[in-house]
Amino acid sequence: MNITIAVDAMGGDHGCRVTIAAVLRFLQQHPAIHVILVGMPDAMSAELRRHKDVPTDRLSLEPATEVVGMDESPQSALKNKKQSSMRIAINMVKEGRAQACVSAGNTGALMATSRFVLKMLPGVDRPAIAKLMPNMQGNSVVLDLGANIDSEPLHLLQFGVMGAMLASALLNKPEPTVGLLNVGTEDIKGTATIKEAAALLRDSGLNFHGYVEGDDIFKGTTDVVVTDGFAGNISLKTSEGVAKMIAAALKESFNRNWLTKLLGLLALPALSSFRRRMDPRRYNGASLIGLRGTVVKSHGGADALAFRYALEQALLEVEHNVIAHISGKMAEFQPTASGDAAAREAS
Amino acid sequence: MNITIAVDAMGGDHGCRVTIAAVLRFLQQHPAIHVILVGMPDAMSAELRRHKDVPTDRLSLEPATEVVGMDESPQSALKNKKQSSMRIAINMVKEGRAQACVSAGNTGALMATSRFVLKMLPGVDRPAIAKLMPNMQGNSVVLDLGANIDSEPLHLLQFGVMGAMLASALLNKPEPTVGLLNVGTEDIKGTATIKEAAALLRDSGLNFHGYVEGDDIFKGTTDVVVTDGFAGNISLKTSEGVAKMIAAALKESFNRNWLTKLLGLLALPALSSFRRRMDPRRYNGASLIGLRGTVVKSHGGADALAFRYALEQALLEVEHNVIAHISGKMAEFQPTASGDAAAREAS
Repeated sequence: MNITIAVDAMGGDHGCRVTIAAVLRFLQQHPAIHVILVGMPDAMSAELRRHKDVPTDRLSLEPATEVVGMDESPQSALKNKKQSSMRIAINMVKEGRAQACVSAGNTGALMATSRFVLKMLPGVDRPAIAKLMPNMQGNSVVLDLGANIDSEPLHLLQFGVMGAMLASALLNKPEPTVGLLNVGTEDIKGTATIKEAAALLRDSGLNFHGYVEGDDIFKGTTDVVVTDGFAGNISLKTSEGVAKMIAAALKESFNRNWLTKLLGLLALPALSSFRRRMDPRRYNGASLIGLRGTVVKSHGGADALAFRYALEQALLEVEHNVIAHISGKMAEFQPTASGDAAAREAS
Repeated sequence: MNITIAVDAMGGDHGCRVTIAAVLRFLQQHPAIHVILVGMPDAMSAELRRHKDVPTDRLSLEPATEVVGMDESPQSALKNKKQSSMRIAINMVKEGRAQACVSAGNTGALMATSRFVLKMLPGVDRPAIAKLMPNMQGNSVVLDLGANIDSEPLHLLQFGVMGAMLASALLNKPEPTVGLLNVGTEDIKGTATIKEAAALLRDSGLNFHGYVEGDDIFKGTTDVVVTDGFAGNISLKTSEGVAKMIAAALKESFNRNWLTKLLGLLALPALSSFRRRMDPRRYNGASLIGLRGTVVKSHGGADALAFRYALEQALLEVEHNVIAHISGKMAEFQPTASGDAAAREAS
């Protein structure tokens, strides 16, 4: 398969300094992959001149004249930035010139533009943001992480399907287990929406485990954790906050005096394996899922290593044909889904 | 002030072995406080015989013939366990024989029984579960952590008032800052409920900071974080899960081979100060708040050190008169609150 990834070279806090360094390293590691860098030609050329061994046969430049601001509203980006690096990179997926798009730009604008340009997959009402999270046994896919703050049971079912297909690809598990995030694991727990979603997931043919709680994400109880974007975003940000606090406390413990500093230096080999394992850069890359095209969002503050992980994630999704799998699974559901929706509307 | 704390000696996974050890140490540290141990007389006496220097002048036993099961439904506990250690300990607060009750028993049963026996404070519609959480600068009070899975704006306002009064007592801050947990800090973010709650909090006279995100809990952005019980419970469990995963990874990094084990031993002085600081036992004790009496829930699996922190929290709440402060503040609101409720019902 001939795979090309379109990269919004200008997106993110550091722009093409980070994106180009990441792309060059990525191309080295994947000798059959093509990348199209979309951005301001002068900035990109200047940055490329800082590197040697640029594989010009597998790297091309696509000019853009605008950049979406990190704080720009999705509406403004959609309306006023038709020549932006972000928009053109997404267009390339639409036109089939690339199989995926990766951007470290403004999340809201990326979501709105992707949805507008690429459209939703048949049977999917809303796109979701999905991410790999580390757990005690490996990784799991968690979604939605903030695309939808209100989700109906049917949306949660769709997130379950999309999450399972993504987990198959990213975790290489044919029948990933799916959990529904709740405030307890007993049947009586949760809102009416959660209970209805559990019933839909139970009948879905997915490998549905049942309810999971916040700590199950990190225990690795299931391969996929489904939640609405409100709870999902709070859980994601909570986990980032706790990890940072613990890292700061650990650092401080070793920085208290010359003795603890010395002990810290001695313990460095062990601590650095720990740090490598917990490195949030390794988990950079959130999939905007449910669209007729592969779009991966990198953290805005990503460095070249982190951005490279986002590129890897896009590649895995393309190689594993995640979109075709979601479409296939959604087609099985569609009669049920619209039937349910009709039933709900009628009630 | 003559303070007596009623302790459900039988509650929790370890029963009176843990509760009595904790109480004896607590009484040593607080030479003016009285404790009433409520439980099976034989079990309590046997356990007390294992200790010396029991301050019999400040410790009394109150017999109970039943124990609420850890998995028993709140309804069953309320209906069938009127002679339980939990119920009698709560009764003592109602009767004025104790100023607070501490239990490591079943949360649902403790909440239902406390609410039934003690009743709500005037102006408070629903009790909440509130807890101190560590952050980079100290501690903050987070509520609700799971008592209410659906909360209306008015409830979130009431949580704000209760949280602020609790933070004043536990953090010794006269005007604690209050944040409302959301998926972003911009005004446009969040559900209709969240936006309405923000408007109420802004007009409340509390020191309202605005929206905060999941990571702000651990940055210590505000002294109080208000959320509904669904997101609050997920955030709490997420933080516990991440902390456990990181602790396990850290341990594993030092356990990899004889060299890393040796380095770990050498680094022990620094690591143990870190461990002490992050010790979840120091944060044991959740307040059931909004009731006409002080009730603190200890984690069911608490050991004696952890249970002692729950006792300390109850004592702080009594010493600082948290209930009177909540009542006073709620009285200021009540006209507005019922006015709002009426307006909402009329609309």
